[in-house]
Amino acid sequence: MTLRYGFLGPEGTFAHAAARRLAGVESGDVVLVPLPGVTQAIDAVRAGAVDGALVPLENSVEGGVPATLDELVADPPLIITAEVFLPVVFDLLVRPGAELINVKTLATHPHAEAQVRRYLMTELPTAAVTMVSSTAGGAKLVADGEFDAAVAPPIAGELYGLEAAAHDIADRPGAVTRFVLLTPPSSPPPATGNDRTSLVTFLSENRSGALIELLSELSTRGVNLTRLESRPTKASLGEYCFFIDCEGHIADQRVGDALAALHRVCADVRYLGSYPRTDGEQGPVLEGRSDEAFVDAAHWLAAIRSDGTS
Amino acid sequence: MTLRYGFLGPEGTFAHAAARRLAGVESGDVVLVPLPGVTQAIDAVRAGAVDGALVPLENSVEGGVPATLDELVADPPLIITAEVFLPVVFDLLVRPGAELINVKTLATHPHAEAQVRRYLMTELPTAAVTMVSSTAGGAKLVADGEFDAAVAPPIAGELYGLEAAAHDIADRPGAVTRFVLLTPPSSPPPATGNDRTSLVTFLSENRSGALIELLSELSTRGVNLTRLESRPTKASLGEYCFFIDCEGHIADQRVGDALAALHRVCADVRYLGSYPRTDGEQGPVLEGRSDEAFVDAAHWLAAIRSDGTS
Amino acid sequence: MTLRYGFLGPEGTFAHAAARRLAGVESGDVVLVPLPGVTQAIDAVRAGAVDGALVPLENSVEGGVPATLDELVADPPLIITAEVFLPVVFDLLVRPGAELINVKTLATHPHAEAQVRRYLMTELPTAAVTMVSSTAGGAKLVADGEFDAAVAPPIAGELYGLEAAAHDIADRPGAVTRFVLLTPPSSPPPATGNDRTSLVTFLSENRSGALIELLSELSTRGVNLTRLESRPTKASLGEYCFFIDCEGHIADQRVGDALAALHRVCADVRYLGSYPRTDGEQGPVLEGRSDEAFVDAAHWLAAIRSDGTS
Amino acid sequence: MTLRYGFLGPEGTFAHAAARRLAGVESGDVVLVPLPGVTQAIDAVRAGAVDGALVPLENSVEGGVPATLDELVADPPLIITAEVFLPVVFDLLVRPGAELINVKTLATHPHAEAQVRRYLMTELPTAAVTMVSSTAGGAKLVADGEFDAAVAPPIAGELYGLEAAAHDIADRPGAVTRFVLLTPPSSPPPATGNDRTSLVTFLSENRSGALIELLSELSTRGVNLTRLESRPTKASLGEYCFFIDCEGHIADQRVGDALAALHRVCADVRYLGSYPRTDGEQGPVLEGRSDEAFVDAAHWLAAIRSDGTS
Repeated sequence: MTLRYGFLGPEGTFAHAAARRLAGVESGDVVLVPLPGVTQAIDAVRAGAVDGALVPLENSVEGGVPATLDELVADPPLIITAEVFLPVVFDLLVRPGAELINVKTLATHPHAEAQVRRYLMTELPTAAVTMVSSTAGGAKLVADGEFDAAVAPPIAGELYGLEAAAHDIADRPGAVTRFVLLTPPSSPPPATGNDRTSLVTFLSENRSGALIELLSELSTRGVNLTRLESRPTKASLGEYCFFIDCEGHIADQRVGDALAALHRVCADVRYLGSYPRTDGEQGPVLEGRSDEAFVDAAHWLAAIRSDGTS
Repeated sequence: MTLRYGFLGPEGTFAHAAARRLAGVESGDVVLVPLPGVTQAIDAVRAGAVDGALVPLENSVEGGVPATLDELVADPPLIITAEVFLPVVFDLLVRPGAELINVKTLATHPHAEAQVRRYLMTELPTAAVTMVSSTAGGAKLVADGEFDAAVAPPIAGELYGLEAAAHDIADRPGAVTRFVLLTPPSSPPPATGNDRTSLVTFLSENRSGALIELLSELSTRGVNLTRLESRPTKASLGEYCFFIDCEGHIADQRVGDALAALHRVCADVRYLGSYPRTDGEQGPVLEGRSDEAFVDAAHWLAAIRSDGTS
Repeated sequence: MTLRYGFLGPEGTFAHAAARRLAGVESGDVVLVPLPGVTQAIDAVRAGAVDGALVPLENSVEGGVPATLDELVADPPLIITAEVFLPVVFDLLVRPGAELINVKTLATHPHAEAQVRRYLMTELPTAAVTMVSSTAGGAKLVADGEFDAAVAPPIAGELYGLEAAAHDIADRPGAVTRFVLLTPPSSPPPATGNDRTSLVTFLSENRSGALIELLSELSTRGVNLTRLESRPTKASLGEYCFFIDCEGHIADQRVGDALAALHRVCADVRYLGSYPRTDGEQGPVLEGRSDEAFVDAAHWLAAIRSDGTS
Repeated sequence: MTLRYGFLGPEGTFAHAAARRLAGVESGDVVLVPLPGVTQAIDAVRAGAVDGALVPLENSVEGGVPATLDELVADPPLIITAEVFLPVVFDLLVRPGAELINVKTLATHPHAEAQVRRYLMTELPTAAVTMVSSTAGGAKLVADGEFDAAVAPPIAGELYGLEAAAHDIADRPGAVTRFVLLTPPSSPPPATGNDRTSLVTFLSENRSGALIELLSELSTRGVNLTRLESRPTKASLGEYCFFIDCEGHIADQRVGDALAALHRVCADVRYLGSYPRTDGEQGPVLEGRSDEAFVDAAHWLAAIRSDGTS
């Protein structure tokens, strides 16, 4: 079966690079479908026009991607089934032969602009910067002659026949973006022993005690966090939900037990998927939190409830 | 069927009073069997000579009763199936016509002596105090002419024909002793909605963090403590086990789940029974900790594990 | 003395509205200085070109403003000395007489675009959207004839002689933006009894236990959170700092004691100011956390250390 | 100056052995004064008749000594200034030439009886056991011909010319008793780097959360517990106070800060002394809890409060 995955196009974006990497590890055929925005890519999944959307979730410099996070709490629900980490490199692309000193107009995407702001203020303080809907789109406009320069990934330079007047111009080098594949809900893939589980939780009460309680339900079961990000719930300032990534798979006893506990004590919990982790190795499971320990405790309890012996 | 319950005799002890009160609420016939000590009464249960032993567990002035606590962690295991709270009143008993001023010798039980020590130092500073194995036994010895006075419950005075030279002489009036009925393990009685569950826990590590962890497994599940008592494990000074009484019944989801968690994280947990509580009313169950909340969370988790929906 | 406050210009932006509101409550004269961006406004404070910068810190729909948050952890340090909450209303502005159906090009700021995205996809699906550096700047470009429409606050329509083809078009109505006045460090203003203290903390270890520890240092001292926002530290994915707003003033004993504790246990803590809170009333101080309780405890400890009495 | 220390006499008791060991390490002259009971020894300190009382605080088998614990919460306050750990060995003492088989009557102290109960039930099931006020007193009564045997420490056998019909008869060998020297309050001795601090705390509310709170105030400051013992407050069943021993000295910043916090949040805290620990070495001080860390944090806070810089 051929799978169709949407991504933020056009070709040459970081999302395109991430999508190609993901497609390379899928067992079947994958067709990559460029779409004009993150929201449109996710809408296409919900409408059934594509099987999944490969969208940016977070960036090591800018943090969470608001458009993606917002869609993860919208309806109908989607889940994450894979992740790709992609190093982010920005070039200042110009038409062949053009010089940096002559750049008067520049096009880029707001996320890219945020990561090269100090560079632009220093090196191109007088250039007019225009925000466009993708970095690759900006490169295309340079090739078309509408702008003098674009801030975009190197692959965009190759695709549109541009040259790098300056290479790797990010204010903070070494940035990484994490992309995730969103699909309609389905049975979780088998646990691999190095998995990640994502969820978003809404607190019943807006106080530090409620957040401590939430974190404690995870930590007492030996479920390690790999990410915690607060986001306004949009009801009012001061109301937050928390996006959480943790080690382990929903099929693990400790992870399932912790999520069931959160379901009980939080105002709401949305499960966002269990999938193979690709950025590190899971640590050892804490004593008393293994699947065996949970099964043993269940047997112990059942015996007591049955005849009082243990 | 006739049940046989052992108690710390002879007739006229506090244990006898407690045993009679308990027997009055049992549905069938109960025969009360006086035995010479707590240890002997419990041994008789273990040997099958009696069906249960009614023994003191704790006193509001003196704290836990070491002999009983020690037997609760010995083998083979026993469980608590009922409790009786008994007000403790001590009289200074003498033979009819005798006067306080002439008391030179006095017999009582060490637990009674501890509760009237200041009285004796003030009122009978020169009397020779001898420890005997029960307060009623002391009264009997006064009736027999072996001692001038006994510190014992009023019922002992009636039984042995003595008079109270002084009434209610405890250094702290209003003391209460809690007696429990110990039996071989059996299926827990049905939950009544106002139950108590007893257990003893041994910590894996001897640090405050381990005790906080233990208490948190209970409090996060909304299981309220009604008693916590530390006891040396007898391995060495500084090693403790913790006797815990909590609200609720082992059949309650939150109680069962908490005990299973303790079984996982503690070095050892011994279940000591679920039985009707007789000293107060259980508070309301915390939101998210009801049986319904646990069942709902289990269904929610099962659905996610099955097809990713929630 | 006349104070000079920079803001994200030109005139007609939300920042301008917030700055005018703030200036109205200052006791002395305030001159408002439009600057081309948040970064430039903050740079102007650091350079001494203005006395303060009024910048957006967070929005009830979009969350924290990355550019502002990043500057709050940059050097040299700045502190918050005042806050303004401003309702956010977006109009679709066109030249007088123009019609919605003829809008082919539209200019706005990325933050505004994020808040009207669904509206634009539905009502103007074919319009070309260009990002500009401020909403008011977009309105000016419409007045200049360079674009057909702008998404901007009503005040921008008045300033540039535009009409609202559609009013209050935000996907989620009722949004509020919180602006803060950043200045060089100075002695905190006196406590008013309804203050807020802001800080940013960096954890020594990246684990849920460290975050629980951080939150506990606040909650055990009865210091309530009003905001918690995680941000990547930019070192790598999975490393976060936490922006925290809490009730109370650095001069309050419980707040000072909590911050000193965080200073000890966190990798780093940056104080971001204590200032009057303008969005609600502070709750009652928890028992044992009042200034009196802290002073009393300090005297108690001093007496013990001096002569062993208490 | 000659110091006078009271102990539970007569000569030959465990308390005597402990008192001699303590006297051996005092720099000046010490006169040991035998007194008839723990209560009397402590009364003598309060009355100024002796400078201190060497009393048993806890035993590795029996737990806390109620008479001592009760006096530690009575008035006027006393503090602990030294501790002695003493191995406990019980012999079955008889007159020279007597045989075990002929023992019909036996005298001992209740604490000793509790530790040899199984032995007596097995080896001397028919002997009449009488409780006396000290083990050495029982030995003296054997020498006087009033009883056939005594359960007492070997030293009592030597003192009163008795023989051991059986040696080291405790049901659990290896028991240790911890004795403490109680004196009127005074300036704490200098910190040695391996000290212990004792206190007793009363909780404002009788719930597991209150105990977790209490323990957390210690653990978050890196103050390790070496002992926790609950005792009824004598108000009613279910109300407890907690005797706590922890590593460190009241002069240590982390210990002082923790005690001040407990003073704020508990219903009451009584300081029971800081003194050299004799049963082990203090572990390393946790990062951020050293005296230096506290001083540094205080300076940091003072600078912020003064001029906003840190």
